[in-house]
Amino acid sequence: MSKFYAIVAGAGSGTGASVALRFAKTYPVVLLARKSANYEPIVQEIRAAGGSAYGYTADASDPASVDGAFAQIEKDLQGHKLAAAVYNANAGFAYKPFLELKVEDLDTSLGTAANGLFYFAQKTLPQLLDAVSSSPHPPSLLVTGATASIRGSAKFTTFAAGKFAQRAITQSLAREFGPQGVHVALAIIDGVIDTPWGKERTANNGVADGKIAAEAIAESYWHLHTQPRSAFTHELDIRPYVEKF
Amino acid sequence: MSKFYAIVAGAGSGTGASVALRFAKTYPVVLLARKSANYEPIVQEIRAAGGSAYGYTADASDPASVDGAFAQIEKDLQGHKLAAAVYNANAGFAYKPFLELKVEDLDTSLGTAANGLFYFAQKTLPQLLDAVSSSPHPPSLLVTGATASIRGSAKFTTFAAGKFAQRAITQSLAREFGPQGVHVALAIIDGVIDTPWGKERTANNGVADGKIAAEAIAESYWHLHTQPRSAFTHELDIRPYVEKF
Amino acid sequence: MSKFYAIVAGAGSGTGASVALRFAKTYPVVLLARKSANYEPIVQEIRAAGGSAYGYTADASDPASVDGAFAQIEKDLQGHKLAAAVYNANAGFAYKPFLELKVEDLDTSLGTAANGLFYFAQKTLPQLLDAVSSSPHPPSLLVTGATASIRGSAKFTTFAAGKFAQRAITQSLAREFGPQGVHVALAIIDGVIDTPWGKERTANNGVADGKIAAEAIAESYWHLHTQPRSAFTHELDIRPYVEKF
Amino acid sequence: MSKFYAIVAGAGSGTGASVALRFAKTYPVVLLARKSANYEPIVQEIRAAGGSAYGYTADASDPASVDGAFAQIEKDLQGHKLAAAVYNANAGFAYKPFLELKVEDLDTSLGTAANGLFYFAQKTLPQLLDAVSSSPHPPSLLVTGATASIRGSAKFTTFAAGKFAQRAITQSLAREFGPQGVHVALAIIDGVIDTPWGKERTANNGVADGKIAAEAIAESYWHLHTQPRSAFTHELDIRPYVEKF
Repeated sequence: MSKFYAIVAGAGSGTGASVALRFAKTYPVVLLARKSANYEPIVQEIRAAGGSAYGYTADASDPASVDGAFAQIEKDLQGHKLAAAVYNANAGFAYKPFLELKVEDLDTSLGTAANGLFYFAQKTLPQLLDAVSSSPHPPSLLVTGATASIRGSAKFTTFAAGKFAQRAITQSLAREFGPQGVHVALAIIDGVIDTPWGKERTANNGVADGKIAAEAIAESYWHLHTQPRSAFTHELDIRPYVEKF
Repeated sequence: MSKFYAIVAGAGSGTGASVALRFAKTYPVVLLARKSANYEPIVQEIRAAGGSAYGYTADASDPASVDGAFAQIEKDLQGHKLAAAVYNANAGFAYKPFLELKVEDLDTSLGTAANGLFYFAQKTLPQLLDAVSSSPHPPSLLVTGATASIRGSAKFTTFAAGKFAQRAITQSLAREFGPQGVHVALAIIDGVIDTPWGKERTANNGVADGKIAAEAIAESYWHLHTQPRSAFTHELDIRPYVEKF
Repeated sequence: MSKFYAIVAGAGSGTGASVALRFAKTYPVVLLARKSANYEPIVQEIRAAGGSAYGYTADASDPASVDGAFAQIEKDLQGHKLAAAVYNANAGFAYKPFLELKVEDLDTSLGTAANGLFYFAQKTLPQLLDAVSSSPHPPSLLVTGATASIRGSAKFTTFAAGKFAQRAITQSLAREFGPQGVHVALAIIDGVIDTPWGKERTANNGVADGKIAAEAIAESYWHLHTQPRSAFTHELDIRPYVEKF
Repeated sequence: MSKFYAIVAGAGSGTGASVALRFAKTYPVVLLARKSANYEPIVQEIRAAGGSAYGYTADASDPASVDGAFAQIEKDLQGHKLAAAVYNANAGFAYKPFLELKVEDLDTSLGTAANGLFYFAQKTLPQLLDAVSSSPHPPSLLVTGATASIRGSAKFTTFAAGKFAQRAITQSLAREFGPQGVHVALAIIDGVIDTPWGKERTANNGVADGKIAAEAIAESYWHLHTQPRSAFTHELDIRPYVEKF
């Protein structure tokens, strides 16, 4: 009998951590983050709750680093098939007038949002395809988008470039791999997430629930993962009730 | 202590029936359909499963008919607050060259998709607002869209007119009532639903799961309903894995 | 040798008047408006400039009224073929909380934006098809949209319903009649137009050129009309440089 | 009195050449292309017609190469202000199953579509801003998009990534520089262009005018450039009448 696991890239942030915790209720979960300090507390929390978790250090925008992590994962998770791959890596963003931006700002944004997803998808799609016939739910590649995935706002030029590119990749993959049984979806997170980092930012004037609960995002990801193949959602938005849109 | 109920307009179709059955696991459900023969089997099925169900005959496109039904519902459900209102009424569609269409085809499409939603929303939104502070989940107005909600295809002129108008209404209501705590969402159903009617239509060359399982749509509606107010989805698409898009 | 004419419905407004004046440089122009006072000054202005213009009173949302006007046009323009039909009829809009709107507000919006375009297109498309092989430019059906064609804002519920429906019709017609040689296009006017009526409205804090010059819209319509069939634009937006979008 | 010039990057292709020829009717035109053989015939054609043209070799995706070309342009065009900058550089595309793509395919696509536009915009926007108060038409930054700017099709993953990113940049720049008087616009070219290269490709089964006339695209670019600031178009699509969309 096959055993299945899930992998979350960008597991250190609020969303990534919550998604890892949610999927760990059902699967052993692999967490990838740039620093072990980012995933270590989540690994411990999952284990304390009786789940299985494995943390790996990797820079999503660096193919050699990704290669190294996946080689190790393959060994450690031998005998498991991949049921869900979540790409949540994030490079932050430069909010600046265009003429003050450097090409490095663009490279950073594209490097994580576009190139990073490209590497991650090339590593995980063969595994997801391999799980199609046996996985309890359609194997899923879930990607974390943002407002900037669908809107190029002033002074968000490089961030929007990366998130638009990421949406293009996700859409192309959905059209290519959906018919093969892999569920590829994009969640457009339109608002500030209620994380320690988010807490420092004012959102919606501090009104109650004006920031997005990361656990709620995780529930939506789980819902996406459990949709049967006759009823795939490719794109959904998530925002606080008070968010202007 | 408050008691809550749900209401499904267009309860006779595959989607409406499945949504009614799903919400009936938690709430008493009111079913509206043009003919009692459409809702009666579902009412029986819900009751047989230990749930509460109430059927009413109404033509969603006729304000007097809607008024009459809601007057009766108010009496029968006295003491209940409205937790979820689902608008799934459907008038079918004319697939014809534009110059063969009659203005009646346009009126039929707009009458159910736009006017019908308008009446339904005017009846249910005051009740949904009244439930905001006590409802277990944010009170929800959920609307069933179609491919034609976002694409005006050749020969679907009047159908697309109705579904575009419906999407506009849903979007405007989300922006007005979201900040007041009511969750307004549109599900864009992009494919043939696996119903007795759907079974007669060829979809995706008869490939397995090439038609949408109505139960899966119902699970997505329930997921929408249970999202907390910090994480509302306004729009999602649902389609079979093999559907071209 | 064929002679060609243009027709503008909603010729009394700033956009309609400017479009009529622009097209009158090349074609005799038929102006339709609800009141003769609306088109009469434009008819005079066109004639004074050496052009040909014909005014007709019609209510775009009333099929009998449209029938009557077109019967008369057919007589008066005998021997002419239709090169361009512009639908610019506008019913104004209700800006109100949803629960204060009446179904009449919805009917008014749909009646002009959707039904009116439907009648106008059924009258003009057969004529436009008839001109395909001889017209100097591809025969064109041009429609005036608004911000509300693509965005359902709070409190614009009924206006957006009409404009979304209108966009659906325009899109479906483009897909059906484009391959037959008729150019169907939508201009999304995103801003306040600099008309006598517009002058009373504050837009962009009164900054210079913060309102759209109607003559500029007319130039874009003329550009659309003169595009060859190998290079049709279906949709373009027009907004002041300072307009937020 | 100021003199004005235009610059076209990617001047060797059908679109770039036609745009250069069109703008050369009014302005001296600078042509940039990867090889002098690409722009030389157009430079000669412009000069033969009595216009002014200057060709420079540059690789749009290489910042040092772009720097070098612009340093030379600055010297050669001294005393001129920049009225129009057209970004039409194109790296071709890989049409392949995702798992056969190399990261180099992604880098190539992003390098020209996103990074190249970034460099070009950083070079030209200061000049365009400098021309705002004196230019005969609002200084314009015009970008050539494609179907893949708005749709991530299967097997077009890397091409779509680049064109989505480019659209994001264009949109962000429009929102930042529009209010400063610079017109930033994207033309979404949806079809095969009728060029020597295009001629080899089958399009629309060889039907007459089934490929886009590059001269028609150039007319639309000129129309965009001549729009007054009260009536900017940000995005328009261009496709053959028989193209499916």
